[in-house]
Amino acid sequence: MDILTVNLGNRSYDIVIGSGILSGIGEKMRQMRFSPKVCVISNPAVFSLYGDTVMSSLEEAYLECFHVLIPDGEEYKNFQQSYHVVTELLGNKLDRQSCLVALGGGVIGDLTGFVASVYMRGIHFVQLPTTLLAQVDSSVGGKTGVNHHLGKNMIGSFYQPRLVWIDTDTLRTLAQRQFLSGMAEVIKYGVIWDGSFFDYLMRKNQKIIGLDRDALRTIIKRSCQIKAAVVSQDEREEGMRAILNYGHTIGHAIETETNYTRFLHGEAVAIGMHLEARLSRILKIADDGTVSRIREMLDVYSLPSALPKDIQCNALFKHMSLDKKTLEGQMKFIIPEQIGKVRIQTGVHPDDIKEALNPA
Amino acid sequence: MDILTVNLGNRSYDIVIGSGILSGIGEKMRQMRFSPKVCVISNPAVFSLYGDTVMSSLEEAYLECFHVLIPDGEEYKNFQQSYHVVTELLGNKLDRQSCLVALGGGVIGDLTGFVASVYMRGIHFVQLPTTLLAQVDSSVGGKTGVNHHLGKNMIGSFYQPRLVWIDTDTLRTLAQRQFLSGMAEVIKYGVIWDGSFFDYLMRKNQKIIGLDRDALRTIIKRSCQIKAAVVSQDEREEGMRAILNYGHTIGHAIETETNYTRFLHGEAVAIGMHLEARLSRILKIADDGTVSRIREMLDVYSLPSALPKDIQCNALFKHMSLDKKTLEGQMKFIIPEQIGKVRIQTGVHPDDIKEALNPA
Repeated sequence: MDILTVNLGNRSYDIVIGSGILSGIGEKMRQMRFSPKVCVISNPAVFSLYGDTVMSSLEEAYLECFHVLIPDGEEYKNFQQSYHVVTELLGNKLDRQSCLVALGGGVIGDLTGFVASVYMRGIHFVQLPTTLLAQVDSSVGGKTGVNHHLGKNMIGSFYQPRLVWIDTDTLRTLAQRQFLSGMAEVIKYGVIWDGSFFDYLMRKNQKIIGLDRDALRTIIKRSCQIKAAVVSQDEREEGMRAILNYGHTIGHAIETETNYTRFLHGEAVAIGMHLEARLSRILKIADDGTVSRIREMLDVYSLPSALPKDIQCNALFKHMSLDKKTLEGQMKFIIPEQIGKVRIQTGVHPDDIKEALNPA
Repeated sequence: MDILTVNLGNRSYDIVIGSGILSGIGEKMRQMRFSPKVCVISNPAVFSLYGDTVMSSLEEAYLECFHVLIPDGEEYKNFQQSYHVVTELLGNKLDRQSCLVALGGGVIGDLTGFVASVYMRGIHFVQLPTTLLAQVDSSVGGKTGVNHHLGKNMIGSFYQPRLVWIDTDTLRTLAQRQFLSGMAEVIKYGVIWDGSFFDYLMRKNQKIIGLDRDALRTIIKRSCQIKAAVVSQDEREEGMRAILNYGHTIGHAIETETNYTRFLHGEAVAIGMHLEARLSRILKIADDGTVSRIREMLDVYSLPSALPKDIQCNALFKHMSLDKKTLEGQMKFIIPEQIGKVRIQTGVHPDDIKEALNPA
């Protein structure tokens, strides 16, 4: 097992990464001395795969544990479902020292974290992420949230888990398209922080796509290390944490324009990373080589990099100007200077943005 | 104007107390450099009295300001209303540097604070409390929350305002019963923290009930000082903050049993304070004099101290055992040792509790 610590003073917590460790969660949580009631929140698909393992492990260590299932899909990450979960928690008399366990991907993790942050003004929660995206991104860093009908993640909080427990074996039951979508965020860490990690991802692409245990552990560990380093310096996204949004300014606009149905999150981010690299070249910051290396990497992991022709650049532009990160003033882009280093760029001329968006 | 500071590191904020200062809020907020959009949240009754003053003051200092009204009453402090407020904020494009202003009593303050804590993962908010209860209690300390149909304040957060701005003149339009209900919390501060303040409340009772400006400023300032001192030491109620719940263990049970319709909050707390003092005497901790001084004080401020005969002590006992503070293990009572000093008592025998509840 690898253990990383996210350093946030009295809100610090460990990220534990290993193969086949799911059944160890009960013993680990027993050592953490929460009160004996635990609620596992999951969705039917994930729970049918891993529910027994987790519940047995908890039951061996705890007196009482129960579960609440949320239907599959982003559309259930909403205020109403969080109210439903609170009802279940109250009905089962969870107290302020209790702990919630999020077993699933980003939807389950974000919703569980949000409920944990507001139930009786805050109780403990533990992340058991089962998708690559959740393992390298959403389960680490304390962003919680649910969607509002007027916008994604508009209701939420910064609220840290007490533990992130990553069993890399859960990736074996993940659809390949989902796995590759998660790889977009892994590639992102290479571009924004660590050129040699980027090289590793290129060099080891066959092992990674083949779900080699050591390779998976390496990429998840390095991704979490980078995310933890960034979050430790800027928990509430007041400054440098914004670099984690590389690819996301355009990526979110693509997701909004296509109603979150055409692309997986990582796929939209992949296109965003490529176009934001192109923007960097237009601004004469990155060179041609940087842009093409990013594009080649996306190709290797079967991720899209071009904007489909039927998506209007004006529509994307409008979504970007309404983004919650944009509202604070002006549009903000994270653009690569070279592989391993990005900058936060504001004041970009709309013509330059449109040139980056339009297929060359 | 008096200025107190609640010391909570980078979440510290000022409490400003004065007579006729409402119209100064715009200039003060301008100096705090939030983004130029401000939303005032209030209820129709309060807004008809003070809305113009506040909106004009803000408009003189800000480019844009609008308001959202919540119907009067505790039953509207719920999840659905908070969703409604979020919808209004999104529709008006409030951004992450925007500020909400809570203009009203505890319901408005708690709901506004909750929305501020979850809108886009947290935006600024300012408290403009207009009731005595809100001025000396709910606006200070960062407890926010809304009700769930299974329990009061079950959904909420610890989230500090950026400023508490108290205009004591707003108490002139407050119904006397509401004012006196607020006095219960003021008396509480004397019992738990400061015997000479308790004496002051007895000595100056006519001036206080007559809304003498200096007396009001004195009692509000001292109450806020005590609350700030306690909260600074224990923001998230993990230890000594519990002393603020003196009178509330029994008080909440009375409110629950009477469906929150028969007694105002302070009235229920007044009965609770007297009965919890009686419990202290039964446990041979407080003497007869302490109990009778508390009872006399409640009489002077026309507050109830006895449990009405139609309220069953078994029913109260059941509510207490379901309280969210009780669930953590055992029932917890804050009981006076003498005027100015309380202790946190667990392990009280049910017979002693029932003896305290039963009219002697």
